[in-house]
Amino acid sequence: MKFCSNCAAPVVKRVPPGDSLPRFVCENCGEIHYQNPRLVVGCIPEFEHRVLLCRRAIEPRYGYWTLPAGFMENDETAGQAALRETAEEAGARVELGEPFSMLSIPYANQVHLFYRARLLDLEFRPGAETLEAALFEESKIPWKEIAFRSVGLTLKHWFADRKAGRFGFHAGDIPPAK
Amino acid sequence: MKFCSNCAAPVVKRVPPGDSLPRFVCENCGEIHYQNPRLVVGCIPEFEHRVLLCRRAIEPRYGYWTLPAGFMENDETAGQAALRETAEEAGARVELGEPFSMLSIPYANQVHLFYRARLLDLEFRPGAETLEAALFEESKIPWKEIAFRSVGLTLKHWFADRKAGRFGFHAGDIPPAK
Repeated sequence: MKFCSNCAAPVVKRVPPGDSLPRFVCENCGEIHYQNPRLVVGCIPEFEHRVLLCRRAIEPRYGYWTLPAGFMENDETAGQAALRETAEEAGARVELGEPFSMLSIPYANQVHLFYRARLLDLEFRPGAETLEAALFEESKIPWKEIAFRSVGLTLKHWFADRKAGRFGFHAGDIPPAK
Repeated sequence: MKFCSNCAAPVVKRVPPGDSLPRFVCENCGEIHYQNPRLVVGCIPEFEHRVLLCRRAIEPRYGYWTLPAGFMENDETAGQAALRETAEEAGARVELGEPFSMLSIPYANQVHLFYRARLLDLEFRPGAETLEAALFEESKIPWKEIAFRSVGLTLKHWFADRKAGRFGFHAGDIPPAK
């Protein structure tokens, strides 16, 4: 059972008048509790043709490698979220470039957004949610130990674009795993 | 006062252990109720160099013109959200193109995302949240009656890119109004 965050009465799931989808509706105060996808924002920190990855110290995907990224917070821009997460997870200072990839993950109710970024120095150190942070050239990327498909796809596009000499913007969807 | 949606106990706003920002925390069951920005997704439906705008039948900005757009829902991709909102608000069928603009609006805890789109026919008709839907060429756009700055900025970029003969991807932030 779920409760109304405004008045603590039980909520029911039903289609409100004029709507087309079932929502959590409070039958006491009338509040409709919408649920919407969340943005996960990060970056691809580059240093002399290598990319900074973080090995996760938390679930899901403990021990797997990821790009620095996390849930965008209220009161910040997407770019500020990317900088904050990069500082928190990798202790890294970057100069942010253009958005590079945006991937909808409907089965997780998330949209993942990654910016290009230039690592400003080598003073990075893992944060509390990271076991280790390290730079990888393309041939050393641990492809079989990448935490999320959005990260693997972003890295594939990034190395392909770098080879082509031109970075684009890559939008797409991640289907459920088979 | 706010209540826990899991157990109906009162929640308090405090910084959880290991976190850096105050959250709504339930001191009964321990649940942390995060609040995150929402994605507003829409498109720029084009038909023979004109753009389809909708005059709002709802607040905020009742009576002002906007591009078809709305809150992305759980269980859908960003592209599906753009198609759904275009159908709901303008009764319009479009073929979606590439993402065109992405604007963070931190004071509203929103990110607005617009896709390029080609209107497939002229059978559009206003939905319940729209007073009227109409096609505008650039010189007829009601610039002083545009509902949201993200929409005005997207339209400016769109007409400028069309003139330049090349459509880019425009990311940025909308600062608070002066």
